Amino acid sequence: MHILIIGAAGMVGRKLAARLTRDGTLGGEPVDAMTLVDVVEPEAPGGFGGRVALETVDLSVPGTAETLIAGRPDVIFHLAAIVSGEAELDFDKGYSINLDGTRMLFDAIRKANGEDGYRPRLVFTSSIAVVGAPLPFPIPDDFHSTPLTSYGTQKAICELLLSDYSRKGFFDGIGIRLPTVCIRPGKPNKAASGFFSNILREPLVGEEAVLPVSEDVRHWHASPRSAVGFLLHGATIDLEAVGARRNLSMPGLSATVGEQIEALRRVAGEKAVRLIRREPDEMIMRICAGWAPGFEAKRASALGFVAESSFDEIIRIHIEDELGGSL
Amino acid sequence: MHILIIGAAGMVGRKLAARLTRDGTLGGEPVDAMTLVDVVEPEAPGGFGGRVALETVDLSVPGTAETLIAGRPDVIFHLAAIVSGEAELDFDKGYSINLDGTRMLFDAIRKANGEDGYRPRLVFTSSIAVVGAPLPFPIPDDFHSTPLTSYGTQKAICELLLSDYSRKGFFDGIGIRLPTVCIRPGKPNKAASGFFSNILREPLVGEEAVLPVSEDVRHWHASPRSAVGFLLHGATIDLEAVGARRNLSMPGLSATVGEQIEALRRVAGEKAVRLIRREPDEMIMRICAGWAPGFEAKRASALGFVAESSFDEIIRIHIEDELGGSL
Repeated sequence: MHILIIGAAGMVGRKLAARLTRDGTLGGEPVDAMTLVDVVEPEAPGGFGGRVALETVDLSVPGTAETLIAGRPDVIFHLAAIVSGEAELDFDKGYSINLDGTRMLFDAIRKANGEDGYRPRLVFTSSIAVVGAPLPFPIPDDFHSTPLTSYGTQKAICELLLSDYSRKGFFDGIGIRLPTVCIRPGKPNKAASGFFSNILREPLVGEEAVLPVSEDVRHWHASPRSAVGFLLHGATIDLEAVGARRNLSMPGLSATVGEQIEALRRVAGEKAVRLIRREPDEMIMRICAGWAPGFEAKRASALGFVAESSFDEIIRIHIEDELGGSL
Repeated sequence: MHILIIGAAGMVGRKLAARLTRDGTLGGEPVDAMTLVDVVEPEAPGGFGGRVALETVDLSVPGTAETLIAGRPDVIFHLAAIVSGEAELDFDKGYSINLDGTRMLFDAIRKANGEDGYRPRLVFTSSIAVVGAPLPFPIPDDFHSTPLTSYGTQKAICELLLSDYSRKGFFDGIGIRLPTVCIRPGKPNKAASGFFSNILREPLVGEEAVLPVSEDVRHWHASPRSAVGFLLHGATIDLEAVGARRNLSMPGLSATVGEQIEALRRVAGEKAVRLIRREPDEMIMRICAGWAPGFEAKRASALGFVAESSFDEIIRIHIEDELGGSL
């Protein structure tokens, strides 16, 4: 089995390649080859026994998508995207990568399908940014997409294309609407949502973190491990059971910032909690108010997608996967 | 005030131009100029006192949109589309006109907005084809778009673009999800939905019509007069009241075929009803099963959009507007 990961240098892409390396199989079939692609050079996962090709490409350049699928990968994970903040600041760049790049990929597969019947499984990472306030809680599966960012608009459009191209039989697509991934490993970044991870990750290693919103802010989370699990399950699930509606809101954990902090206290003690410094930020509070508090995710749950059920679990996963298993 | 109608040779486009001619004003302002555009030469509406420009263009040809807005029309009605059946048969053509053509129009306006602050009102005709079975009845305003045709996909994508471009301030857009327009004037056509009009229009003038489905098929209708009314209201409504969710399911009349026939009996007698020949068509029945039975349309109704409340009324409008006022 040959697997293509577009966006392989990103956090989820790297974890996905590492997990495939560890598993050695996908859906019971051995993984012989991986093609890892990003705008910056991806790293080869250590210890993978099969063929690895690393490519540095810009998906929005015409002809690129054709090259990527020339080896006819069996499964394509499409994770590449200009993130929300950048897509909002650079309108052309966001549409060019997030919409046109994705559509070029879809069209390259469609062309190949017409030529030789090529029909890969295509796992597309969408986002909870496809919905926009005012939002009910929990958000039902059949709630409409009314994004309030260009990023969310681009993701919602790609969801529609994915369904239509799948319906026409050009590929077997599934769209995975990821919750906010928490705890994001690495350094604090400037994303407005960064604090959800910062206030746990930094105190766990004795560092200070800034909380810019009040403790009653509710949001929708899943661990990086779950995010990878969603993608792998999406790659192997029976699409007959999914039916025509190919874009699924993933399960996750709806929690307030206060609940996050209580979990931190249980796992790492009062000492860790004291490292959270309250520094209210009006702009971040305003942005936050438009975010999804949580989804029903009934369909995805019934289809076997699974996320964490407590923030204690999310913190323990971070300790296992990023901190060597103990504090 | 200068008005641009793209898709002016179509049934709704012609009626819209005629209505603007009759009114002479839009939102209280005199209509000085109309630019009427289509892929086939549009007709100038009889009796219009202002300037009329007629243009035969293909919106999907790069540069066309820039030409169309060179005169900086104050209001743009975008009605042009490859219809559902053709978009399903010709994948490239449907995406080229319905998606790319619309996006080129939006981008031409965005460019003009950047150059000189141009910001027209843009009224986009969407369709109930953005939803797809299984559907609740009535369909709530916040129901998701899961189209089952490429046409519906293209309309749903343009709705998302319209909202995003409006949010960014490039134009003041509003998307009008038209019900099935009934009674469609003219000759019977081969559209799968044609029978909804055929079974009324033909018997009203003593001609036979074929009914390919059972009488319990429920669908969502509005008269051509209402369709034009929706567009005009959309052109003048206060968009602050509409808010960020710019695409509105229009009000309409949810009726079964049996109810249509009862209305025909009341208006035109048993003699007319006897001209309906039952000829069940498995394919049309299957297609019909996926169509929308009706919408709540709460938001649009609250915003002052109005449709018919009985099929008797729809038939009487047809008699007034198409048959000179009497049978």
